[in-house]
Amino acid sequence: MTTKKKATSNSEEAARPLRDSVAKALDIVGDRWVFLILREAFFGVRRYDELRQNIGASPTVLADRLRRLVKAKIFKRVRYSDHKNRYDYHLTEKGLDLYPTIVMLMAWGDRWESGKSGPPLRLIHRSCGHTLVPRVICSACEKPIEARDVRWEARTGSKR
Amino acid sequence: MTTKKKATSNSEEAARPLRDSVAKALDIVGDRWVFLILREAFFGVRRYDELRQNIGASPTVLADRLRRLVKAKIFKRVRYSDHKNRYDYHLTEKGLDLYPTIVMLMAWGDRWESGKSGPPLRLIHRSCGHTLVPRVICSACEKPIEARDVRWEARTGSKR
Repeated sequence: MTTKKKATSNSEEAARPLRDSVAKALDIVGDRWVFLILREAFFGVRRYDELRQNIGASPTVLADRLRRLVKAKIFKRVRYSDHKNRYDYHLTEKGLDLYPTIVMLMAWGDRWESGKSGPPLRLIHRSCGHTLVPRVICSACEKPIEARDVRWEARTGSKR
Repeated sequence: MTTKKKATSNSEEAARPLRDSVAKALDIVGDRWVFLILREAFFGVRRYDELRQNIGASPTVLADRLRRLVKAKIFKRVRYSDHKNRYDYHLTEKGLDLYPTIVMLMAWGDRWESGKSGPPLRLIHRSCGHTLVPRVICSACEKPIEARDVRWEARTGSKR
């Protein structure tokens, strides 16, 4: 790599905003515990004790992540007992909208990390009855998308 | 919540394998730095120096994550200079298959975390020319999927 080429490459990269929506999303969900909490939520788990048992987090870690997720409006807390300060954690619309991310991650794990015995769990799409194999498409043309078929434009006008 | 109800709920949950494909995927990608490295890779960045500049990781952290990602076969290292031990990091097929997860996370950030000024970056689907709004569908019926429309079955026969 020549110095000149490196300089060109860097200046192109500088034009892409690095504080993008991936970085902002990761401020909230960029953590193994958060993903596991979300997985549990999508499987219908709403209680602190059950979350703790299923993900194996320490009380400190779990309480911290739940506090952050409530603050980020991923969960809303709903009291389930009048005489105690006990809450269920319900996914908000914003939280529910993380399902596509989680389900694609699970599908990736099914394909690449499940070994010879296959995935321990399969999802079924209730409305059609088939095993769920999720696929990402472009909303406009409805074709599957691949990284190499996508380019970007910055709000400032930079593009690639 | 009664004790009885809790016991029932726990025994149902115990039937769901907790060491699922989400957990296995998170062993590899459950880390903010890894997601940022993958973002860069999907934007075409292949060099250590450029990765470091763009994601702002320390040399120790970046080297550690790259080593893990090579070990997990997400990247392959390709030498780009004969007289030095310098490598490009190329996404493998397994690595490229993480694009749907990243692009759904970005879309979520666009919708929920970009504020009044809107996303700093938009993606364009080259083949149709439209702004990319990715959507997850069921491969079988091609309908969009939602968490509430999905149930699970364990390999052992447990189900919900």
